[in-house]
Amino acid sequence: MKKQTTILILLVHLSWLLFPSIIAAAPKQTPNFIVIFCDDLGYGDLGSFGNPTIRTPSLDRMAAEGQRWTSFYAADSVCTPSRAALLTGRLPIRTGMFSDTRRVLFPDSAGGLPSSEITMAELLKTRGYATAAIGKWHLGWQPEFLPMKQGFDSYFGIPYSNDMDATFRPSARSEYFNFLKNPKREYWNVPLMRNEQILERPAEQTTITERYTDEAIKFISANKSKPFFLYLAHSMPHVPLFRSKKFENKSARGLYGDVIEELDANVGRLLDTLRHLKLDRKTLVIFTSDNGPWATFEEQGGSAGLLRGAKGGTYEGGMREPTIFWQPGVIKPGVVTDIGSTLDLLPTFCALAGVKAPADRALDGYDLSEALRGRGRGPRQTMFYWRGSRLYAARHGSFKAHFITRSEYGGEPEVTHDPPLLYNLDHDPSEKWNVADKYPEVIAEIRRIAEAHKSGIPPVENQLDKRIAVSRTR
Amino acid sequence: MKKQTTILILLVHLSWLLFPSIIAAAPKQTPNFIVIFCDDLGYGDLGSFGNPTIRTPSLDRMAAEGQRWTSFYAADSVCTPSRAALLTGRLPIRTGMFSDTRRVLFPDSAGGLPSSEITMAELLKTRGYATAAIGKWHLGWQPEFLPMKQGFDSYFGIPYSNDMDATFRPSARSEYFNFLKNPKREYWNVPLMRNEQILERPAEQTTITERYTDEAIKFISANKSKPFFLYLAHSMPHVPLFRSKKFENKSARGLYGDVIEELDANVGRLLDTLRHLKLDRKTLVIFTSDNGPWATFEEQGGSAGLLRGAKGGTYEGGMREPTIFWQPGVIKPGVVTDIGSTLDLLPTFCALAGVKAPADRALDGYDLSEALRGRGRGPRQTMFYWRGSRLYAARHGSFKAHFITRSEYGGEPEVTHDPPLLYNLDHDPSEKWNVADKYPEVIAEIRRIAEAHKSGIPPVENQLDKRIAVSRTR
Repeated sequence: MKKQTTILILLVHLSWLLFPSIIAAAPKQTPNFIVIFCDDLGYGDLGSFGNPTIRTPSLDRMAAEGQRWTSFYAADSVCTPSRAALLTGRLPIRTGMFSDTRRVLFPDSAGGLPSSEITMAELLKTRGYATAAIGKWHLGWQPEFLPMKQGFDSYFGIPYSNDMDATFRPSARSEYFNFLKNPKREYWNVPLMRNEQILERPAEQTTITERYTDEAIKFISANKSKPFFLYLAHSMPHVPLFRSKKFENKSARGLYGDVIEELDANVGRLLDTLRHLKLDRKTLVIFTSDNGPWATFEEQGGSAGLLRGAKGGTYEGGMREPTIFWQPGVIKPGVVTDIGSTLDLLPTFCALAGVKAPADRALDGYDLSEALRGRGRGPRQTMFYWRGSRLYAARHGSFKAHFITRSEYGGEPEVTHDPPLLYNLDHDPSEKWNVADKYPEVIAEIRRIAEAHKSGIPPVENQLDKRIAVSRTR
Repeated sequence: MKKQTTILILLVHLSWLLFPSIIAAAPKQTPNFIVIFCDDLGYGDLGSFGNPTIRTPSLDRMAAEGQRWTSFYAADSVCTPSRAALLTGRLPIRTGMFSDTRRVLFPDSAGGLPSSEITMAELLKTRGYATAAIGKWHLGWQPEFLPMKQGFDSYFGIPYSNDMDATFRPSARSEYFNFLKNPKREYWNVPLMRNEQILERPAEQTTITERYTDEAIKFISANKSKPFFLYLAHSMPHVPLFRSKKFENKSARGLYGDVIEELDANVGRLLDTLRHLKLDRKTLVIFTSDNGPWATFEEQGGSAGLLRGAKGGTYEGGMREPTIFWQPGVIKPGVVTDIGSTLDLLPTFCALAGVKAPADRALDGYDLSEALRGRGRGPRQTMFYWRGSRLYAARHGSFKAHFITRSEYGGEPEVTHDPPLLYNLDHDPSEKWNVADKYPEVIAEIRRIAEAHKSGIPPVENQLDKRIAVSRTR
């Protein structure tokens, strides 16, 4: 034993000579980044965010080991704009990825995220990152808009929403619900792509969560010795809800619960892979979603928990998401109540990877890295709630002013509020008690902030309303 | 080192001779019991139950080390009946602790929990337990009804609700809200008692949470060598909301948050005391509340989270409570979605303490001890939602049928539903989607169960409507 100890001490001393930089001044680690982005997950759908029956042990463990953010926002209340904002750090109103009519891209859309936009994948590639997009894309399905044109080395996934390309025409809402309750592969003729080729069509969705994760694990394993960025955008729990055999009737919450529990288990597989490869301390993993639950579909949609509203609307339930940041040993475990947004991921990644963020355009995000390390409060004080071309609401600090409200998907017109509805979100996350009459000075300040914000946005071409000529349909 | 090992082995072997019972068959440990019972705490008021701004690190740690029950019910939606049920394991309809008019006891009430009822304190005393009631009593304030007449060795607390004995008469609701927003000691002339004597009046409520905990810690320390039962019924967060200097403006949630965060810190003090005295593994601690949040008081009331309804009503928000069971090394950590109730505590304590539960009367509780140890599912399949003399709703398994609904405190009459409203609480904890038309057989079964339950309840004298003659007012 004495001999072994001597050798060990000798090795430690030798390391000073061989690798002085390790001990003298650790070189700035460039972390890997993984964004796990769900589709239509509600604020109240995880155990650690208060769901009573859906069991999410892997995500709850991730939350316990990392930071659980309780005021973290998607940048929009529907899919396409929200995704465009995450990847660019810019509000959809700046990138043309908004619309007052169709709201998202469809298989017949001719538009997409303009190639002039700079995605986080493109930025990280300048520092030698391997990049992969796996899962739902929804930022343009014409060849010029696919992930490999936006900085990703590879792509595997369904390029738009999994409920598109329906092969049936329901005559009534109730009939559509019946299709959703017993979903079959052939009902939705969506393609599954590898890179720029269609691999299978209709995509077999029962195994989609598992296959996305298999691909993710392969990518991580192949890149364990170099920095990587993985954008893993699950197609679930967007309707139609599919899950694999193993998860059938597993959850007390029914089909929707089965889907969330399969997502949870697959997040667990991913984190276990990182642990096994000893990449956990080198990899920043973020779990969040693109918008709130799709309440239209009742039991087939999730829960916004104590928040008001749902997908499609600008009450909190439409945009506030259950969000977890995880990097053991780097991120200080705890609960963070500061405001954050998917818009902040690009500036944060730039800061952590030592990449200069684009200086030639307006960004709408903030660098959260100091807050993640537990070294201070988050820098974000405001959040803007856009719906298409219109600023519906704005939050500053604790207070949120609704200038306009409208039902998520109803045909009712906009309701303009003057004075705006005012809620103290810290006291009243459920937006129940309008306190406008008590805080005129707060309203005045939010008005100023909102006007300054709006006046700084130049007009851009709308990408979402463009349709392809029929002959170009693939 | 060899010598030490030999001595150690020898000691282990000797122990067989000296203390054979320890190794042969460990004698059944009789655990201590602590019930921490809050007042008007909502399902969504703790961090671990999804609250975004109230910080409850001590309770979250307690939940992580213990069991978090997500379908655990108080036995009634208002204070007095709920407390009577907890202490007796019997529904208020059996003990006379119900009313269709006054709903709870008031300072001028002549009634109380009948001495013929057997409390868990009385049962545990038969096994030599030291017993203490600290905090709110609300089961009768006439001398014959005080805690020391119900099996408790001592009492310290405010004997009824902390908003009683108001010294002002508000002319309007808004005026009452102003009193609540800046509560002062002299507004509510409630007594603080030690045993059967008034110690101070009006009670100084700013320090009440801390003083209750001080008393609890003193009781635990004094009884560390013998089994004890502590019933710690906090007066908070019932309005008026008071907290000590240290917690003023501490919480982002405002006054209500300050109060919860002070409760949390004091639960932390209590558990730390148990750890320090090495009683943690010997003490079963339960944290829950008497009913849902008092929504009437808007920001001064809590949140039922994703649940519908609030205090006073029979939707889930009125009776489902954030509940934690804790006993390190004994209770299997995790999340339990099985149905439980405060009615189950008495049978559970009896089982764990080796006390025979009363056989001469109907009990409404179940022994949860196997579920607590992680050895099986909870035994409870049904929950009855009484309001005064009327059975409003019944749950069986996943399904809940509402035979009658009524607003929590409004003057509107009852609404009778035939068929009843039917909700699948596992799928739909927010009680949004009535599925009565899809499950007639479930409704038929719940009807049978409800009728059998009702027919087994003999009429008893109502205790809550009795008033004292003015001369007897204390």
